[in-house]
Amino acid sequence: MTEEMQRIVLASRPDGAPAAENFRLETAPVPTPKEGEILVRVHYMSLDPYMRGRMDDAKSYAAPVPVGGTMEGGAVGEVIASGSAAFKPGDFAFGMFGWASHAVAPANMVRKLDPQQAPLTAALGVLGMPGFTGWFGLSEYGKPKAGETLVVAAATGPVGSMVGQIAKLRGLRVVGIAGGSEKCAMAKETFGFDECLDHRAHDSASDLRKALAGACPDGIDIYFENVGGKVLEAVLPLMNPHGRIPVCGMISWYNAGGLGAGAASDGLSAPALWRNILVKFLSVNGFIISNHFDRYPEFLKEVAPRVIGGDVAYVEDIAEGLENAPAAFMSMLRGGNRGKQIVKLI
Amino acid sequence: MTEEMQRIVLASRPDGAPAAENFRLETAPVPTPKEGEILVRVHYMSLDPYMRGRMDDAKSYAAPVPVGGTMEGGAVGEVIASGSAAFKPGDFAFGMFGWASHAVAPANMVRKLDPQQAPLTAALGVLGMPGFTGWFGLSEYGKPKAGETLVVAAATGPVGSMVGQIAKLRGLRVVGIAGGSEKCAMAKETFGFDECLDHRAHDSASDLRKALAGACPDGIDIYFENVGGKVLEAVLPLMNPHGRIPVCGMISWYNAGGLGAGAASDGLSAPALWRNILVKFLSVNGFIISNHFDRYPEFLKEVAPRVIGGDVAYVEDIAEGLENAPAAFMSMLRGGNRGKQIVKLI
Repeated sequence: MTEEMQRIVLASRPDGAPAAENFRLETAPVPTPKEGEILVRVHYMSLDPYMRGRMDDAKSYAAPVPVGGTMEGGAVGEVIASGSAAFKPGDFAFGMFGWASHAVAPANMVRKLDPQQAPLTAALGVLGMPGFTGWFGLSEYGKPKAGETLVVAAATGPVGSMVGQIAKLRGLRVVGIAGGSEKCAMAKETFGFDECLDHRAHDSASDLRKALAGACPDGIDIYFENVGGKVLEAVLPLMNPHGRIPVCGMISWYNAGGLGAGAASDGLSAPALWRNILVKFLSVNGFIISNHFDRYPEFLKEVAPRVIGGDVAYVEDIAEGLENAPAAFMSMLRGGNRGKQIVKLI
Repeated sequence: MTEEMQRIVLASRPDGAPAAENFRLETAPVPTPKEGEILVRVHYMSLDPYMRGRMDDAKSYAAPVPVGGTMEGGAVGEVIASGSAAFKPGDFAFGMFGWASHAVAPANMVRKLDPQQAPLTAALGVLGMPGFTGWFGLSEYGKPKAGETLVVAAATGPVGSMVGQIAKLRGLRVVGIAGGSEKCAMAKETFGFDECLDHRAHDSASDLRKALAGACPDGIDIYFENVGGKVLEAVLPLMNPHGRIPVCGMISWYNAGGLGAGAASDGLSAPALWRNILVKFLSVNGFIISNHFDRYPEFLKEVAPRVIGGDVAYVEDIAEGLENAPAAFMSMLRGGNRGKQIVKLI
């Protein structure tokens, strides 16, 4: 009898915010690894905002998930069969295993994890792609200098919390933005932000801007961009000359369809955006972390000891069961998570 | 009898495109230089798009010209009285003398010119602020590599023509955009552009984009931004991954009032603009050349010999008489000039 696996496929493309009917749970036979491949049983899978982009058919830095295809994503699995001398059953590995209970992957496309060194889930968040994104974007494009002021939204998320903590370690004033008083308290108490503003308490960009101006008396030198929308509109006029804006995401605009000419701009016009770049001499850099894996060892060397030593905190929200991944994902896109959203399969 | 000077002051702030009534010709007594100052009689003054920005009361990188104040600008003058040992009558100097027949300036704020080395007007264009802007923005933020493709608008203007010629010298494919077939022919014949597109022949951004796609079969690696509007909208989707956009101006948007939320965006939304930066990993840098005068000697060392030797061409449009400066300026903002717009006073 063939063992069966479960996976979640893209049933249809969302129109705006994803809904339950855009996903479908399927069963399939567990695949067999070929020479050079491993078969894993997934223990933890990651849910990340970028996955929303893959659900659209728009041209982006990555190909869209095809309708009927397994949703993509990083995960941690236990090797249960190996066609590679580099892995043996019982080893743990991180790879792009997708939203699935089992996966086969080339051994040279996965990374072996040492469960003694750090909890397995850390490979999905604080020491994984999101943490690396925050560290790299801040270091490479943010160019932080002690005494400057940094603003980052989704402050308790795995990217924002890394950005804020690294900036604090480098001597910056760090102001977060998050949704709700609980997250704002967490940003300050758990992650050491100097201030955190609740964007839900400020309906309009101009309201939020007033609050930001109070929290950033010397203006803003670095805005680490992961949300777009109202926050960007609030921040822009407060940017100091020679400010830097690393851009790794814009979750508030991910549901805006193709983001074409007609997409909601929340009152921020393209000329106003462009003019701010000119008159403030801003440096704006878009990036995706997968282009920069050569820097991953440097990140791990600097940050892993701080995570293990407790200088860099992290918070995880763990949903249970593959079948609950779509609901957890949709909730995350609405800001329902506090920290790194993970799904526990086993 | 006190000698009189003439100057053009900002009579009122324009609403949209400047009109004749926004300017006023005045007479005043010729000022006397104090210790450390020089008095010049202006021979040539420069007209530049950035001056439109100074006419608005909007916060920008420079204070606005006050209503009733002399219009600002660079000019070349002959020293007629000197309170400084560094200058004697008969010397020529470049300084921010404004739209005026005479000016007093601190000797340490002007630059002595050698009329034997290059024509005096070169200090206003090809070897002055516009040429330096093109060279610096391309070198510093454009990071040109042989074999890449560059696009620049206002291709026959003093910034665009410098950008194009330096890029050609560095081995790039260079595609210009200009208004009218005469300018397009000049871009190719005088300045050596590979192609030049007439934006007047392409009403919509999508039309212009189609033509650009044909002229840039390998996509666009560097877009040197000096116009904004339709050209930006046409270019963005054609940018290659890791493309660079130095931003030194946006003349097509200068007349859009305060460029606030309601300003015309020509169909380009802020989210679409921001998304292109993210998904193409673009590096966008706003700059003003006055922050980078430390690099001016390097520019002169590299480019002056090429101008004198004829490798770098330049074209000047010379209007006659201070009283005609407003008309020449308004015409320039509509694209009426071919090359560097200068006003000859003597």
